[in-house]
Amino acid sequence: MNEFELISELTRSLPSNESVLVGAGDDCAVLKPVDPHQLVLFKTDAIVEGVHFDHDDPPEKIGRKALARCLSDVAAMGGAPTCALVTIGLPKQFDADQVKRIYAGLSDLARQYGVAVAGGETTASPDRIFLSISLLGKVDREHCVLRSGAKPGDAIFVTGELGGSRGGKHLDFEPRLEEGQWLAGHFNIHAMIDLSDGLAGDLRHLMHAGSVGAELRAGSIPISREAKLQAAGESSAKPPLLAALTDGEDFELLFTVASRDAVPLLDAWKARFPKLRLSCIGKVTATPGLKLRDENGLRELPTHGYVHFA
Amino acid sequence: MNEFELISELTRSLPSNESVLVGAGDDCAVLKPVDPHQLVLFKTDAIVEGVHFDHDDPPEKIGRKALARCLSDVAAMGGAPTCALVTIGLPKQFDADQVKRIYAGLSDLARQYGVAVAGGETTASPDRIFLSISLLGKVDREHCVLRSGAKPGDAIFVTGELGGSRGGKHLDFEPRLEEGQWLAGHFNIHAMIDLSDGLAGDLRHLMHAGSVGAELRAGSIPISREAKLQAAGESSAKPPLLAALTDGEDFELLFTVASRDAVPLLDAWKARFPKLRLSCIGKVTATPGLKLRDENGLRELPTHGYVHFA
Repeated sequence: MNEFELISELTRSLPSNESVLVGAGDDCAVLKPVDPHQLVLFKTDAIVEGVHFDHDDPPEKIGRKALARCLSDVAAMGGAPTCALVTIGLPKQFDADQVKRIYAGLSDLARQYGVAVAGGETTASPDRIFLSISLLGKVDREHCVLRSGAKPGDAIFVTGELGGSRGGKHLDFEPRLEEGQWLAGHFNIHAMIDLSDGLAGDLRHLMHAGSVGAELRAGSIPISREAKLQAAGESSAKPPLLAALTDGEDFELLFTVASRDAVPLLDAWKARFPKLRLSCIGKVTATPGLKLRDENGLRELPTHGYVHFA
Repeated sequence: MNEFELISELTRSLPSNESVLVGAGDDCAVLKPVDPHQLVLFKTDAIVEGVHFDHDDPPEKIGRKALARCLSDVAAMGGAPTCALVTIGLPKQFDADQVKRIYAGLSDLARQYGVAVAGGETTASPDRIFLSISLLGKVDREHCVLRSGAKPGDAIFVTGELGGSRGGKHLDFEPRLEEGQWLAGHFNIHAMIDLSDGLAGDLRHLMHAGSVGAELRAGSIPISREAKLQAAGESSAKPPLLAALTDGEDFELLFTVASRDAVPLLDAWKARFPKLRLSCIGKVTATPGLKLRDENGLRELPTHGYVHFA
């Protein structure tokens, strides 16, 4: 099978939606504009063999992960994804079955969230497969949530449980699209980000964007079962709390709201998303820096070298 | 310099425009929607070290090429580019100066055409640098030109001169944006494509999209000086006509118009773009297949194996 035959087969049954006027097969995809009261979200992200996935990972999950990472970013703006393009870099001797399964996994996730895949490119990548995703989304003007906007006194929340994602969740995670849209539509979310670099790293991004600091309560940080199992099973593994702070690829939502909204939000969340944990893990401070409160008191988390902190 | 320091430096002075509400530094870029009477163009494309550029190519030209390829696709729709995102894959031991110069070349070209660079990603790519570009554009609804739409009897035109692009033009070419918009705005262009795979290959894409055939006049095909020099200089080089038909990466525009429009178009073109050659190279036929007429008569061009044809 050559490149053109592969493309022809891959593009035969891509998911579409009403936004797509011309999909795969022209110089560009042609899309309807969003409503004038909405804003456009635009994201790109790539995953590389040996870095973000292994050669022997199930191909469907590789394709799924590539798209899910971008969906998670749209979720963190309070938006809805509309249309994706896929660029896949392939060695000359590619495995057509593997590539078809990568596309199948990606397309299944796209269908689940009503996202069109309006084409893309295949290109030669001699050593490793890579997938680069371009994603468009939309969000109501008044509901677009940025990283900036956290205010001193805000309560800090995180969805789900953190740490140990490399044990499998990084290939399986559910982008928090429904949750992000619900939060942005029902509460005055001051700032939001999705967790890709780990709680400590991504919280720093929020703090930097808002020129604020933060204080976390160690006992409130939701640690995944996987992080605990890894810590119990391997002497070289990180302690669970450190894993939750620094492992990365959690793809949960981290956000802040005014403290007076914290309890109403928790109540409404439990009614709306009874199966997904939501944790209030600390508060935003006017003083810069990231601090952690535990049974020994309050201590500063170092800016760099999370791996060496324990 | 680590990844975050590099990103911070790269994103400090990216070109912007009025479409960008939030650029680099949030989960997604946030853009104003286009006017409701316009359509959105969406394109992605990647270039890989050792495939589309060499490690020692001037870094500015590598960045320029990555974006120019996508601009050329927007040109082929009759559209105007608005906003790009850049994903760059880098080895662990990246050369920060090289990366900054890649971004500088890309940004210079973006500024030249009023395109915003609203952020992107860096990612680990252990063996080779790759650049993946996502590009948005816009086009008036009535002026969007597709690959399909060629009609039997149409005159086939091509801009510029073809072949030998690997001699240097592939790093230096000018995307035909002004020309594409002018053509779409002033004439009833039936079908258009930009030449990336070579005239014979891309003409087949047009023919396939329009369910038609084509007949080219060998003597009318504009052959670049570079292709002629390569043929004269190396005994292993392709004959010039073959190079013009099959070399690829010309990034010129190939389009068809009704035969009655051919002469008025040529006249108007000469007045508007006196420095850029425009050639009428043949006609669209109802019979499928690609034929070439030369002094020996009419012969079929084979579907595959262009390299072996001469």
